[in-house]
Amino acid sequence: MSHSLNFKSEHRCFDGTVAYYSHESQCCRSSMNFAVYLPPQAKIKPVPVLYYLSGLTCTEENFTVKAGAERYAAKYGIMLVIPDTSPRNTGIVEEDETWDLGSGAGFYVDAIADPWKNHYQMYSYIVTELPEIIHHNFNVNVNKTGIFGHSMGGHGALICALRNPEKYRSVSALAPIANPINSPWGQKAFTAYLGKNKDHWYDYDASQLVKKNQLNYPILIDQGLDDPFYQQKQLLPEKFQEVCEQVGQQLILRFHQGYDHGYFMISTFMEDHISYHALYLSD
Amino acid sequence: MSHSLNFKSEHRCFDGTVAYYSHESQCCRSSMNFAVYLPPQAKIKPVPVLYYLSGLTCTEENFTVKAGAERYAAKYGIMLVIPDTSPRNTGIVEEDETWDLGSGAGFYVDAIADPWKNHYQMYSYIVTELPEIIHHNFNVNVNKTGIFGHSMGGHGALICALRNPEKYRSVSALAPIANPINSPWGQKAFTAYLGKNKDHWYDYDASQLVKKNQLNYPILIDQGLDDPFYQQKQLLPEKFQEVCEQVGQQLILRFHQGYDHGYFMISTFMEDHISYHALYLSD
Repeated sequence: MSHSLNFKSEHRCFDGTVAYYSHESQCCRSSMNFAVYLPPQAKIKPVPVLYYLSGLTCTEENFTVKAGAERYAAKYGIMLVIPDTSPRNTGIVEEDETWDLGSGAGFYVDAIADPWKNHYQMYSYIVTELPEIIHHNFNVNVNKTGIFGHSMGGHGALICALRNPEKYRSVSALAPIANPINSPWGQKAFTAYLGKNKDHWYDYDASQLVKKNQLNYPILIDQGLDDPFYQQKQLLPEKFQEVCEQVGQQLILRFHQGYDHGYFMISTFMEDHISYHALYLSD
Repeated sequence: MSHSLNFKSEHRCFDGTVAYYSHESQCCRSSMNFAVYLPPQAKIKPVPVLYYLSGLTCTEENFTVKAGAERYAAKYGIMLVIPDTSPRNTGIVEEDETWDLGSGAGFYVDAIADPWKNHYQMYSYIVTELPEIIHHNFNVNVNKTGIFGHSMGGHGALICALRNPEKYRSVSALAPIANPINSPWGQKAFTAYLGKNKDHWYDYDASQLVKKNQLNYPILIDQGLDDPFYQQKQLLPEKFQEVCEQVGQQLILRFHQGYDHGYFMISTFMEDHISYHALYLSD
């Protein structure tokens, strides 16, 4: 496997560096893009790594520009890794037909259905391939890895953590799709990527996975009450909460009056999320 | 004069509100757009107002999304007002021909040359018309007004403050065009908006204006040393510093190794800028 990176650009920020890269992904058989924030501490020692998975339509850029996370990552000495939300320009005809499937909408699953299965392997990419790339190229402590995300990426973070208790030390989410098998977005994506047999869907649904595996740390979730997608029952955090209570999974689920689904909500609670991860990732 | 506003959208952020408006500007004879951040304190008392003038090509949106300023405005209880950088869709044929003149490039001057003079009256808009609109529509203390900006907007902030010591209590700038009459950008814009007679240019050049008026507070300026526009001598902060020293104007000019011209630089120093303004604007 090649670990080589194509450097695109970098910018000094809070005494560290925001940088953009692409590389050839073996599991997605495609070029993939990601961004990083390297905190100043990485110059002198291996730093913890915190993956951020973005929501529908995002690229690796939205979070770096809009979330205001660099300030806190610099404070706590944590590297941020922000992958793109899907392969792009794979040649799959349907790839750019709708905003909630294909490009920008990989849903962090390993597709098993045509025409997606040859390229849309986002679960393996996030959990296995990208961490190897990061480990090989940056000064990180792989034993200290956390993950978080927003909306579709909140779903992604939850499933990655719940399926791999040994890989991640912390997980949090902002307005996650917490029960995709019962959400219109999730049903559309899972039907396309995984086929109609719902047995395959359960492996990628946080509210199902938490029945099998519980984590020995609390999961943090924030949800705005003026979020139209929450109101339209795309996100379903109460369903996840209900199962967490049944199985004894610690969950900190906070609802916030007046907040919507966008980056103004995300930026407001960013300090809390990175502080939470720092508790579990710092020395 | 009509003070009525066309509300476009709003988002909860750090317990306050980011909101976007348009209105009919009398002095620009055009619809104008602006954004605000109303801190939570505005619900209970009149709050200070801090104007932020953006750089070339920006709209009222860039700063609200990228600067991370809301956190500090909420902390100090300061309203932010972010005007668009020019009138738009005025019907002037040349308006959208180049990125550094016309739309997105009003340069905060009152144009006196054709074809711009009928609409490009950004100086009067920023100093007089927009503050009346803000005063009429929001719970602000007009006796506590500050101004800052970036690049072209840093130039704008400096000239507004230097020409109106009675109106502004504080001024700061990030990578400002500090001596536009000697900068290629400034020369192009001033020739177009003000004509070839350089007597008119001096009224809009910070390094000239500070010879006439000094402010009884220090001016704060931050400049990245890896900023390509600084290296290309578009910005010329040393010229402004030289004149400030000659006339006894207090100036805090800080250079920062490795930082470029963009919002990653702006966001890094945002806390310092809003803290500086809070010193002069808070109770």
